[in-house]
Parts: sequence; C-alpha cells; structure tokens
Amino acid sequence: MIKVPGFLGSGVSSGVKKKGKKDLALIFSEVPAKAAGVFTTNIVKAPPVLVGMDRIKSGYCQAVLINSGVANAFTGKEGLKDSILTSKHAANELGIGESLVIPSSTGVIGGRLPIDKMKRALPKLVKDLREDGLPDVAQGIMTTDAFPKYASTQIKIGNKKGTVVAIGKGAGMIAPNMATMLAYILTDINIGKRALSKALKNSVNNSFNKIIVDGDTSTNDTVLLLANGKLGNTAIGESGAEYKKFESAVTEVATEVAEMIVQDGEGATKVAKIIVKGAKTEKDAEKIARTLGTSLLVKTAFFGEDPNWGRIVAAAGRAGVNFDPNKIDLFFGDQKILSNSKEVMDEKKAQKILQNTKFDITLNIKCGKASSFVIASDITFEYVKINAHYRT
Amino acid sequence: MIKVPGFLGSGVSSGVKKKGKKDLALIFSEVPAKAAGVFTTNIVKAPPVLVGMDRIKSGYCQAVLINSGVANAFTGKEGLKDSILTSKHAANELGIGESLVIPSSTGVIGGRLPIDKMKRALPKLVKDLREDGLPDVAQGIMTTDAFPKYASTQIKIGNKKGTVVAIGKGAGMIAPNMATMLAYILTDINIGKRALSKALKNSVNNSFNKIIVDGDTSTNDTVLLLANGKLGNTAIGESGAEYKKFESAVTEVATEVAEMIVQDGEGATKVAKIIVKGAKTEKDAEKIARTLGTSLLVKTAFFGEDPNWGRIVAAAGRAGVNFDPNKIDLFFGDQKILSNSKEVMDEKKAQKILQNTKFDITLNIKCGKASSFVIASDITFEYVKINAHYRT
Repeated sequence: MIKVPGFLGSGVSSGVKKKGKKDLALIFSEVPAKAAGVFTTNIVKAPPVLVGMDRIKSGYCQAVLINSGVANAFTGKEGLKDSILTSKHAANELGIGESLVIPSSTGVIGGRLPIDKMKRALPKLVKDLREDGLPDVAQGIMTTDAFPKYASTQIKIGNKKGTVVAIGKGAGMIAPNMATMLAYILTDINIGKRALSKALKNSVNNSFNKIIVDGDTSTNDTVLLLANGKLGNTAIGESGAEYKKFESAVTEVATEVAEMIVQDGEGATKVAKIIVKGAKTEKDAEKIARTLGTSLLVKTAFFGEDPNWGRIVAAAGRAGVNFDPNKIDLFFGDQKILSNSKEVMDEKKAQKILQNTKFDITLNIKCGKASSFVIASDITFEYVKINAHYRT
Repeated sequence: MIKVPGFLGSGVSSGVKKKGKKDLALIFSEVPAKAAGVFTTNIVKAPPVLVGMDRIKSGYCQAVLINSGVANAFTGKEGLKDSILTSKHAANELGIGESLVIPSSTGVIGGRLPIDKMKRALPKLVKDLREDGLPDVAQGIMTTDAFPKYASTQIKIGNKKGTVVAIGKGAGMIAPNMATMLAYILTDINIGKRALSKALKNSVNNSFNKIIVDGDTSTNDTVLLLANGKLGNTAIGESGAEYKKFESAVTEVATEVAEMIVQDGEGATKVAKIIVKGAKTEKDAEKIARTLGTSLLVKTAFFGEDPNWGRIVAAAGRAGVNFDPNKIDLFFGDQKILSNSKEVMDEKKAQKILQNTKFDITLNIKCGKASSFVIASDITFEYVKINAHYRT
C-alpha cells in the first residue's frame, strides 16, 4: 500500500481504453505543493509537456491530470487548446486555480484528446479521490505496461517520519533521456524550492535517465516531484545531512520504478545492468554503456542467453571512445569472460549467468577511473509483435 | 553471369561451414592490380583488416583470400599471425609475393582461424580459379546471407568496353559506417591510383555507407576496388568525362549490391529509402535520416505495415537537429501524410504504400536546401530469431 499524507489519488475509465480499463487518473494535494519537473529533451514536445513546462515555473502544483491512450502529441495549436481546456475542467471540478493543474498524456501520437469523454468522467474522478487511491493512479496511467509501477520509502526528518512515493509508467520508447515515461514523486516532507529541483535532477540522472528499452525518446516524457510540506518539518535546504537523506530517498524510489519499467520493457525477459569502468571520464563510460544498451545485437544475444562477448566488444568499439582493444576486462556477473582481451570464459557458467532474469555486465577499459552504467532490457519476439501492431 | 577480363575467382568448402557449403573464396588478378580500400571505422579492428590496411598502402593487390564462418576478430597477436600465415600460404600456392595478398574474414567474433582446414583447401581453391568463377566467390563469402550478391555494368572508354563488377556479402551488423560487409569491386579499366581511391571513396559514401539494417558496425568491414588495366586504355585521371563515367559505374554496382544487402537484412521484409529534405546542411539531413533508419519503433512499424507517422516525427525530434515541428511535410511514396505538420493522410492509401517491399519515406523539414538519405530494412521476428541464436 502506498500513501502520502495530504495526497489523494483516483483513477477511472473514461471509455478511451477498451473493456472498462482505467484511462484517466488524478493526483491531488490538499494544499498547493512545491513542485519541480523534468521534461522530454525531444524537440517535438507534446502540448501537455509545453503546458507543464510553463506552469511548473510558478514552483507550485496542486493537481496532476493524466490520461492514457492518446498522447495529444503533434496536434498543434488545437492540441494545446485541448490540454489547457481539460486541465481547466479539472480545476473547476476541484475548485482550484487552473494554473495549479498540470496535464499529462500518454498513448498514440497524432490523435486528439477525447475531451468530451474526459469531461464526462471528471466528476467521478474527483469524487473518488482518496488517500489510498494512489494505486488507482498507477493503474490509470498504464499503456502497454503489463503491471502498475510504484515504490515507497520513509525517512526520519528530526523526530518525524516523512514519506516519499514514486508512481510511474513506461514500457516502450525508453531512452536515452527518460522515455514515454511518466513518473510522479510525492512527498509530505517540507523542502525548499531549489533543494527540491536539485534533488529531482540528481535522482532522475541516476535512475530514469539510465534505463534503455529501445533507444527511442518520447515526445511526452515527464517526471514531477511534488512536496506538500504536511510533515511540518523546517524546510530542508540545498545541502547537509537532511538534504542528502532526502535526495537518497527520492533516488531510491525513482530507481525502483525505473527498474520496473525496464523489467516491463515491451516483451522484455532480461534486465541487464551494464557497467563501464576504467574510463577517462564519466561521459566516456556512459557513451559506451549506452551503445551496448542500445545495440540490437547485444540485446538479442541477451534474449538468446548467448554469451556472445564478441558483440559486446564490437559495440564498445563503435561507441566513439578511444581505448586499447587489447587490454579489456569483461565480466558477466562474477564470471570473468575476458582478461586483458584474452578469453578466459567458462562457457557453461557464463551462460548460467545470462539465464537469470537480472544480471550485471561489467566492462573495464582501463583508461582511467571514471565509470557509469545503464539498465537495459533485451529485445525479443514479443517486442517486435507489440510494436508492429500497436495501432492496428 | 559476371566476368571481368583478367580476374579469376573460385570458392570451395574447407569444412568450417556445415553441409559442404562454400566457406573459402579467392579472387585473383592475372597481373598485380591497382588497388584502393575502405575499412571499418570501429576501433576494434580485426587482424585481417589491420593486414589489409597495411598492404593496400603499396597501391597494389593481386589476390584476395576470404574465409567465412570465423571473423578472426578480437584474437590479438595470434590472430594477426594467423592472418599473415594464411595469406602467405595462398601466396605460395599462387606463386606471387605475399604482400600482394589481402586477407578478409567474416563470421563469429573471437574464434581463431581454422588454419589447417584453410591450408588443406588451398590447392583446390587455386586449381579451381577461372574467369567465370566470380559467382563462386559470392557464394563462398556468405554468412547469414540468404542469397549471393553481385552486380555488373559496362561502360565505353574510348572505343573499348570496360567492365565493373561488385561482389558483396552482408546481412546483419549493418551501419552506420559500412557493416559486417565485405565487398570487392573489380574492373579491367586502366585508371590512375588517386582517381581509383577517389572513385572508391565517393561511391562507398553514396552506397554502402547509406545502408542500415541494425545500426551495428562490424570489426571486419572491407571494400576493395581492384583495377587490373587489362582493357589497355590510357589511364583515367582524377577528373573529366571518363572519370565521371567510371565513378558512376562503380557507384552503380556498389548501390546495387548495397540494396541487396538491405533486402537480405537479417529477417528483413522491407527496403525503405528514407529521404530527408530541406535541411540546413547535408550532415543535418543525414543525422535525421540515420535516426529514422535505426529507430526500432519506426522499423517495427514498417514491419507491421502500420502508417504510424507519429513514430517518425518523434524519432526526427530526437535526432539532435533543430527544426520547427509545426512545419513538417511527410510523404509515404507519393502519398502526402503531413502538410505543415497537419495530418492529410488517406490511411488506406498510406497503408498500401507500406505493403510494398520497397518504398520511399520523404521528410521535408523546411530549414534549407540540403538533403540526404539512408536505405533501411525493417526489424522482424526473424531478425530476433536469427540473432538470438546465431552462435548456439
């Protein structure tokens, strides 16, 4: 059960998704919450992203209205009007100012929002709001997701226990910067505005920005962090022990949800943490890790549980980072595969590692001391099936 | 039938591939041919590539020895010795200097060359050499290729007819710069050394460097252009009408083989020419075209014959090129899909275009006058099947 004091949630079916599945969700804070947001880097930004980027500037948000099934992306001025109109309807229904509502959309690109259906569903959506309704939010924002995604943690601030909850969705179009990924992190802890932004940025960099399903970046990616201050603690600043604790807690729940997204990667059967060590800079390490995490040949080898290390070194070699190809160490889990580029693999043991659902791949290029990682899924028949016939 | 005066070819089974399939091939020029080469940009270069890069410096080559099944990549100093040794054996058998032999290898990365098998097969390989043996070369260099690949053209130089033939292989690990792709272009036309290099470079840029199957770049990519001068024409220089004719002919056969490689892309069912127009620079246009050609979501939509244009604009938006997302024109074949970013698609007609095996996708971003293109395959169940179980 996830719950954050002062935050209410609900999810209903507005009739966009078939079989009465939930497709409209609402997060509501009893008081305006301090808010920070991170949005897609795609230059094709969906109208709800444009509205969100504008409204977050005030530093406050009290409600998030999320619809799934239609992304309201690439819908031009009309799409922008639609996003503004639906959040206005929600604001009216909630009795709050419309600038305190942030809209999110996920689904097929190109279609217009089902304004009428959403409007008809709003009264029930608001009526259903309750503190234990956050799991319904997680249900309502799913698209190709196989399961709802959320995580929760608590930390002590002074003598009080604060809560941090993350709710997310996403299964395809994941990486390199976020994804068709929506995530909402909610906390009752009181924290300064700049500290809130800093904590969000750092935690997203170490969680959602590290996951790769297919290498595509969506037009709708959004991560919001809302803090309603209900805990009543003195506002946390930008540094110090309490700030660190807070950032760790946000990173923890964000990482949990991020890993769930990879695990639920469209058709995925594997979650591989690809770690690159011994790089001159973190950027170099990340470049190689990302190249491995997006390489179709590497990802299909994971699916086939095939310890085909040649594909890993070949992909590393085209990442655009200089290293000595004669000095590589490579590990699958705790199994050494290459030692100074010489094969030392016990094939059966190596294969056994790849038969797990989760495993680490560690590449040491011995040029320096920097490292980075990505968390990547494999590419499977099911991925192709889902994406060849998503619309039709 | 492909044939070039003065060039002999042969292909035999050395026992590396199963079922007696040809796995060793030889191209032999009766006289040392002027030679130019283009090699993989991957920093992990296979030993045969290192040997080839070194030997091509002399500007001459008389024989190319190609084995398939084992790439002799990532095999360190031993692998380098193996490549040198096998080409020495071939040189001895042919009675020519070993520096005139260029070795090529394609297949699984990491395994050592089957030296003994290759040595045993060499006498027959040399004995079988004949002018109509070039199709056997095309057979002998196949790995996951479904069919052998070659193309031929003739041009008039003065009052004589010169021949240009290209033989290639490749089906996976294709792009962004060449691929696990081997190609040998042979001509009897007499041409200067610098003109030869220029013609190879330009034609590769407009053919092999434009194809994308899976976005992986191999450690073994090699394209060689050999000109034995048998036609007896005055050597063609670096410019003028004859040079242009020559470069066009090389580009023509290279493009034909390049398109065959995409058509034979592992599991591919579609060959899409993705054209980006209206960019500020050719580089910008190419960046977007490459992003579209490698996007898994775009490629699976092609497989599903799904006119899901949203994925195309979303992928274009993350290519790292600035353009106004409200001003895009998009065509599938002759069907206009987007006009100034407004959907004008006739869905049935759009789908009909995608039901063809070959089609064009044209995106106009209206920022300038530069354009570029790539030729890309789709990604299918079969691709995943082939690559999940290639080794095992």
